[in-house]
Amino acid sequence: MSTHQHFAEFALSLLDRTRPVVAQYFRKDIPIEIKSDASPVTLCDKAVEAEIRAALAETFPDHGIFGEEHGKTALDAKYVWVIDPIDGTRAFITGVPLFGTLVALLEDGKPILGMIDTPALGETWLGVDGTTSFNGQPCKTRQRALKDAAIFTTTPDLYKGENQRRWLAVQNAVQTVRYGTDCYAAGLVASGLADGMIEVGIQPYDVLALVNVIEGAGGKVTDWSGRPLGIDGDGTLLAAGTPELHAELLALLA
Amino acid sequence: MSTHQHFAEFALSLLDRTRPVVAQYFRKDIPIEIKSDASPVTLCDKAVEAEIRAALAETFPDHGIFGEEHGKTALDAKYVWVIDPIDGTRAFITGVPLFGTLVALLEDGKPILGMIDTPALGETWLGVDGTTSFNGQPCKTRQRALKDAAIFTTTPDLYKGENQRRWLAVQNAVQTVRYGTDCYAAGLVASGLADGMIEVGIQPYDVLALVNVIEGAGGKVTDWSGRPLGIDGDGTLLAAGTPELHAELLALLA
Repeated sequence: MSTHQHFAEFALSLLDRTRPVVAQYFRKDIPIEIKSDASPVTLCDKAVEAEIRAALAETFPDHGIFGEEHGKTALDAKYVWVIDPIDGTRAFITGVPLFGTLVALLEDGKPILGMIDTPALGETWLGVDGTTSFNGQPCKTRQRALKDAAIFTTTPDLYKGENQRRWLAVQNAVQTVRYGTDCYAAGLVASGLADGMIEVGIQPYDVLALVNVIEGAGGKVTDWSGRPLGIDGDGTLLAAGTPELHAELLALLA
Repeated sequence: MSTHQHFAEFALSLLDRTRPVVAQYFRKDIPIEIKSDASPVTLCDKAVEAEIRAALAETFPDHGIFGEEHGKTALDAKYVWVIDPIDGTRAFITGVPLFGTLVALLEDGKPILGMIDTPALGETWLGVDGTTSFNGQPCKTRQRALKDAAIFTTTPDLYKGENQRRWLAVQNAVQTVRYGTDCYAAGLVASGLADGMIEVGIQPYDVLALVNVIEGAGGKVTDWSGRPLGIDGDGTLLAAGTPELHAELLALLA
């Protein structure tokens, strides 16, 4: 298997540019704009993505980019970077330090690298070449039976109708459900501290960075139909710490 | 007004004993016991409370103590310390660093000091003598209209029947609701990063430490009937960053 270590080094080098921007804005009184999809955005989101785009323009000018705040560029390129500058903007704007900067790299449409960085906590998960590191040290998912599992989702308010029935089936089958942690939940799964993450209505930039982080640590990530995630997903996410738990959760979401 | 600075110094000195205990257990594979009320508890909860009790026995042997894990002692004393060694045990056991150690001091039944410490983040709010500090610096609540407010609660699953109607009235009136932050939400309110916190089914040790933290920063804390919190509460909490917002939320919860 070819390695992608040069991409990993580049991804980590981004933090020297993104973290200072976040430090400048976090817990400061900055204007909040409400986007057309009712989600909030701040100057910080835009400035962080601009830093990543500037770094990409310098180092990989022919790569494509799909960013939450500044749109799509050359999505037909062999390599496409998918960026959520601040995942968890609602956490960010209320001072909760669990928000993260998400960076994924697709090769021929397939996720080959994912990075979750939490600038306010200084915690970084990086998945590439089949392994995942947490702050530079290897990390692994844990083995848990469904009944003992801790599953995270952003908020139960997202589940309506049939999806609510599916979510409640999961909630009733596991030991613990937790809300409001956004991408941080994926890091917890990769580090063997939690067992799964389930979402609906998400965008590619919300989740593509999670794929290699969780799978490199031993887990499995798909949509609710068991399909791999790509740039044209159906907005659902099912991530679990082991393939076995993933299969059980998939059955509950069917 | 008499000052209680010697109690404040004592409370802060507890952190030299409690934080090392937490560091020893957080994100380690330790057994979890499920209590009779279905809430989880770990060795860490018990060890942290034991440290605080040992410090109290040395310094204030005639004071009363009401702790979540080791029960009630001399509640008829003039001074009673109310302790939740790990508030947010579900966060603690899933690796989320927002859990806190809560310490309150009652004088003749009235809260006169509150401390929220987040050992994994190194953030401490201390309210005493009408002022609140965050890591040693004064902090203040912010002014927000109801429609612009960010309100926190542990989970919407706690609200059933009439209480669900009340909670939804709040949810529909404010800009943002957030879940899962436990006592951390009170610190965010005191620091002017969020606007309110609402809970049901809570115990005195879950909330008495929040009273002086939030009120010393300019906010107001009562139960859902507008009564001050004491050792015999009805299990409801309404905390807001300003008296005006408190009154508006109180009307919605009526």
